Formats: sequence, C-alpha cells, structure tokens
Amino acid sequence: MAPVYIAIIGLGGVGKAFLSQLSRLSLPTATKPTVIFASRSSKQLYTKSYDAIDATNLDSSSSSLLSLPDLTAYLADAPGKVILVDNTSNQDVADAYPSFLKKGISVVTPNKKAFSSSLELWNDIFGSVSAQALVYHESSVGAGLPVISTLKDLVATGDQITKIQGVFSGTMSFLFNTFAPVSGSGAGKWSQIVSQAKDAGYTEPDPRDDLNGMDVARKCTILARLAGLKVQGPESFPVQSLIPKELQSAGSAAEFMEKLPQYDGEMEKYKEDAAKQGKVVRFVASVDVANDKVSVGLEMVEKDSPIAALRGSDNIFVFHTQRYSSSPLVVQGSGAGGEVTAMGVSADLIKAIERLS
Amino acid sequence: MAPVYIAIIGLGGVGKAFLSQLSRLSLPTATKPTVIFASRSSKQLYTKSYDAIDATNLDSSSSSLLSLPDLTAYLADAPGKVILVDNTSNQDVADAYPSFLKKGISVVTPNKKAFSSSLELWNDIFGSVSAQALVYHESSVGAGLPVISTLKDLVATGDQITKIQGVFSGTMSFLFNTFAPVSGSGAGKWSQIVSQAKDAGYTEPDPRDDLNGMDVARKCTILARLAGLKVQGPESFPVQSLIPKELQSAGSAAEFMEKLPQYDGEMEKYKEDAAKQGKVVRFVASVDVANDKVSVGLEMVEKDSPIAALRGSDNIFVFHTQRYSSSPLVVQGSGAGGEVTAMGVSADLIKAIERLS
Repeated sequence: MAPVYIAIIGLGGVGKAFLSQLSRLSLPTATKPTVIFASRSSKQLYTKSYDAIDATNLDSSSSSLLSLPDLTAYLADAPGKVILVDNTSNQDVADAYPSFLKKGISVVTPNKKAFSSSLELWNDIFGSVSAQALVYHESSVGAGLPVISTLKDLVATGDQITKIQGVFSGTMSFLFNTFAPVSGSGAGKWSQIVSQAKDAGYTEPDPRDDLNGMDVARKCTILARLAGLKVQGPESFPVQSLIPKELQSAGSAAEFMEKLPQYDGEMEKYKEDAAKQGKVVRFVASVDVANDKVSVGLEMVEKDSPIAALRGSDNIFVFHTQRYSSSPLVVQGSGAGGEVTAMGVSADLIKAIERLS
Repeated sequence: MAPVYIAIIGLGGVGKAFLSQLSRLSLPTATKPTVIFASRSSKQLYTKSYDAIDATNLDSSSSSLLSLPDLTAYLADAPGKVILVDNTSNQDVADAYPSFLKKGISVVTPNKKAFSSSLELWNDIFGSVSAQALVYHESSVGAGLPVISTLKDLVATGDQITKIQGVFSGTMSFLFNTFAPVSGSGAGKWSQIVSQAKDAGYTEPDPRDDLNGMDVARKCTILARLAGLKVQGPESFPVQSLIPKELQSAGSAAEFMEKLPQYDGEMEKYKEDAAKQGKVVRFVASVDVANDKVSVGLEMVEKDSPIAALRGSDNIFVFHTQRYSSSPLVVQGSGAGGEVTAMGVSADLIKAIERLS
C-alpha cells in the first residue's frame, strides 16, 4: 500500500473539529495517513523531509512561509499520494485547486467558493480530476448531510433530476420557523427575531451576510451544476435579498440592526398574505432542472409540506427525480457547525484514502 | 488500470433494472466493467475464456450449471478483479459470501439475508473483507436511500449513535398512513386497507409476510450491527406481529384475508387509544443504541413528528447522534421497488469499481 500524506489548510472551527476526528478515524492501520503540512492565517508547519507533524503545535512553528505555488511544488514532490484538506472558505486557495490536481494532489474540502464561483473554475477543477487526483466536497452543501453524494449517485446511475428544492440555510430556517410557524402566530416581529438570532450566534456577525441570500445562492449553484445545468455563478439567477434596499449600505451591523424595525411591515405583509391562503412564508431555494431555472427567495408553502414542517435551524433538501417521482427523496438535519461540517470532510477523506491507498 | 469483471446472480425485477442502469453508468471508459457471468433460477450464461456476455441472452443459454463452489473457483481464476452482484434474496448465496471474499471476489448486493441472519455469518463476511475484496450493501436497507452509507460515515468519523428510529417498511407505512392519518379519520377498517394494499401490489402476495414484522426486524438487525450492537439476529429482540394469533397458520392468503375482518376491533382500539392522547399509531422500528435495545412494533407517535407526517409508502430513517443531538439527521423517501433498489446497487458498484480499478 502506498503511504498517503495529508496537508491541512485552515485550522479554525471546522479545522479543529476535523483534527479531532482525524485522530479517531476508522481506517486499517496500513492506510492511516500522515499529516505533513498544516497552516492557519500566517503560520505554517512542515519539514523539508516530509516528516509527520503535530498540527496542534502550529502556533509555535517557525517554518518559513510557502506561497500557494511553492506549496503545490512541495506537495507534488512528497514520496507518496497527497490529499489537500482545505478547511477555509478562501477564494485564492480554491482558485489553486486545478494546479494541485494537475500535480496529482487530491482535494477534500467544505470550501463552497471553489464550486460556486465561475463556471470556468468549475470546469477547470473537474477537468483536472484523474484516478490519482480526486475531489470530494460533501460539506460544501449542507455540511455532513448526505446531499452531494446522494445527488452524484442519482446522476451517475442514470436518474433524471427534475427539481431540487428546500431550505439550504440554517439561519434562514431558524428565522422563518420562528417568525411564521405552522401553528401559532410566531415569536415576534421580524427585526426582533433577527436580533434574537444574532445574539444566539445563529447569524454571521453582520446578519446582512445571511439576509442577502448569497450563501443559499452558492449552494444552489453547486447543486444545479451537479444536476447538469450550466449555471454561470450565484449572480446569474434571481436571488431575493431580505435586506431592505435603503439598508444595503447602512454602515455597521449595529446601524443596520437599529434601522431594521422600520421595515417590519414588509415582512409582516408577506406573512399575512401567506396566512390568508392557509400557507406559511419560507426562504426557499429551487433548482428546477427540467425547466433550467434556478431561484432563491420567499415563497408561500403549504402548511403540511416538509419544508413548512422544518424545525429549529434544520436544512432540508428535497430531490424530485424520475425514479423518486411519486414521492421525493428527502434529506434533513443540521446543515452548519464545526462538528457536522468536519464530519463531511472526514468521511470524504476516508473515501479518498480508500481509493488512493 | 486492471480490468474489472462482473458476475450477476438474479435477473428478476431488481436485476433487470440493474442491467438497464449498468448500460448507462457514468464511469470513465477505462473502468467500464465486463459482464462475464449471469444467472437466474436454473439458467446460467458464461464462457470458459471469460468473454463478455450479453445477460439479456440468458434464457437461450446452454451453459452447463455451476454450483456455488464451482462459481467461486471460476470467478477466482478470472484474469482481473471480480465483483459479484447478488440481486437475489437467497440465503444460500448469502452464506457463500465469505468464500467469495476469501478468494478476492468483491460483493455488491441488496440481499438483506446476508447481513441479518446469524451474527456468525456477519462476522465471517466482514472478517473476510480486504482492500481487494469489498462488500457494499446500501440497498439492503431502504433501497436506494442513503441509509447504510450515512450510518457508516457517522460511525467511521467517530460520532456516537444514540438511537435510530423510523418506519422501515413501505407496506407498513402505507397501511398506517391510510388507516390513521394525522388529519381525518382514515380510509376505512384495518382489514379493508390491508385488502386495498394487497390489490394494489403494495404487499407481498401473502400479506402475512409483511404483517409479521420480520422484514422490518431484518433491517433493524443490520442497522443495529452497523451502529455497534451485537444483535444475534432478527428473532433476538421483541417484534410485534400484526397477524392475529389465531390466523398465523390460517392456510392460504385468501383464507387469511377472509378472516381478518373479525379482528378489526383490535386495531381500531389501538387507533382510538392513540387518538385520545392526540397521537397516531404507527409501526415503528427502534434501535436504541445507548440502551442496547432493539424493538419493532406499534407505537403512539406525536402528530407533529416526522414519523407521523410520512405519506404514501415512504420510509423514514431518523438518526439521533451525539453530533446531531439538537435535531436528528433524517432520510426519507421510497424504500422499495426495482428501480430504486437497483440504484443503490449501481451506485455501490461504481464505488467498488473506483476502489478496485
């Protein structure tokens, strides 16, 4: 068996959870990988002779810094197969995937940017994949939930995807499940619920980074491309932003939160309009493969639909296909957080090692 | 790349759907497998020189019949890696898996019997697995739904499974969703609904083969073992049969159906008792890993639970784990039928080929 080496970029929340899972991975001893490189921000740890390193010692490292091209060359010369685990959401690292792959370095990552930026980058990445240089990215959509793998299996075995729908953001899920629950009248005004979610850490530090819908649009882009649509990018289809136009450049997050209550009437109206039809309002992602249409935004959904029935901050992915035509294949659960994101990365790593060793 | 050969046992509903999917599998040309053996009932088709065969010609074949040991020897001598695709539910074939594996022959199968019979057979099968002789059996539980793969990923990456619950039978799902829906009073008496399901082909030819709960018990056995419990077999834990004692040996299926209405009162009482508590009755499978308890039978479930909300003949698998503790990971959809069962087999075959070639 050829030895397998691992290089880890990014040791934040996901990276740390990944390191912890890596130490307990269920793999035959012969295929246990060796970590030879770790980096975070402006720290790197590695040796010229490809020795095993302890990534937890990164902070005290004095290794000289390698640029991405230098790192590519360093890993390409390793005396065995190499898997790059990119736990960042960095565009520069994503842009370097084709170079890594062309040098026989596999990539395992939750980095959405690699798969939801230009269609050119997507084609360049998958055009560089070979039996020796693999790409796995389960956690780029729905964290550890079996979303990417399920979609790939459906497509690879010849099913026809007609539509993928759902709630692809834990933040949006929490906001609407709380604002417009199936039973009861909701836990308060829209701005109050956004504020509550922000305080609980359910939103980005600036909630506008969730409310603009771009995170959901990136996930849609990835699923749409896997389903066969030539989507140019997350800005190439309609995405409804929940940031009132006047507040798009309202300065700080604090200023935004202060002014948001002035716009509660708009969201209240959506909610009431839905209620009049016996429905609830949700922030729905829709990849309509049959009609080549992708969209993200508010929709009124039937109260007894799986999308309406979501709870907490769960994600839901509903796959309508030719085989699953009478009732869709549904995957549901927590779609964010360090542990579950790292789980998708670790499970991908096992699959890559099984193929490479 | 080493050539990969396929031997197919079983060309019924699942086998035919598998053959059709096989012809369209998304694989690089270099890894396209060659079918060298096909069998159904008392027909076999193969050549001594391992030529590609056309399995659709099986009926007109005059190949002499190989016993299972002969077949093992034949496949072991093939000039490349061999994957046995067992599309039967045959116990004899399942019992031969360890012999196949020990000869370096991989196994891909939906055959539940291999993984839910004695714990000895389970240990023998997985003790015979190697990097060259793999076992994949996604469709042994929930057909093409990502159930086995998800559970394996959770376990392999170090999550702790606390409980797996759900409705693991399409027949039971249909019967109870129809008999005791969340809203409305149901579509008739129990025996009428069983009769309706039988006429629609939703049950086995003798509905007792569904109502005895053993199919669900087998699936529980598989999931429990994968989650780490040492379950002796599907008869080693409580399984509630829905066949009235007096009718267990009531002769033909027709006689059983004729007498079933006499027992409608019992099921009506379950339904009413549940309704009094604001709940609905469902046939629930439960693998309580934390308490080492497995059980199958009637339960009263909350109306707003995902189990109660099932529709049609959908299966649902609810994974409660340490990582998914605040809300479970849920997989839902059609869990039976030739096309979706074959999909699980085909997707497994791709994974096996990717590792072997």
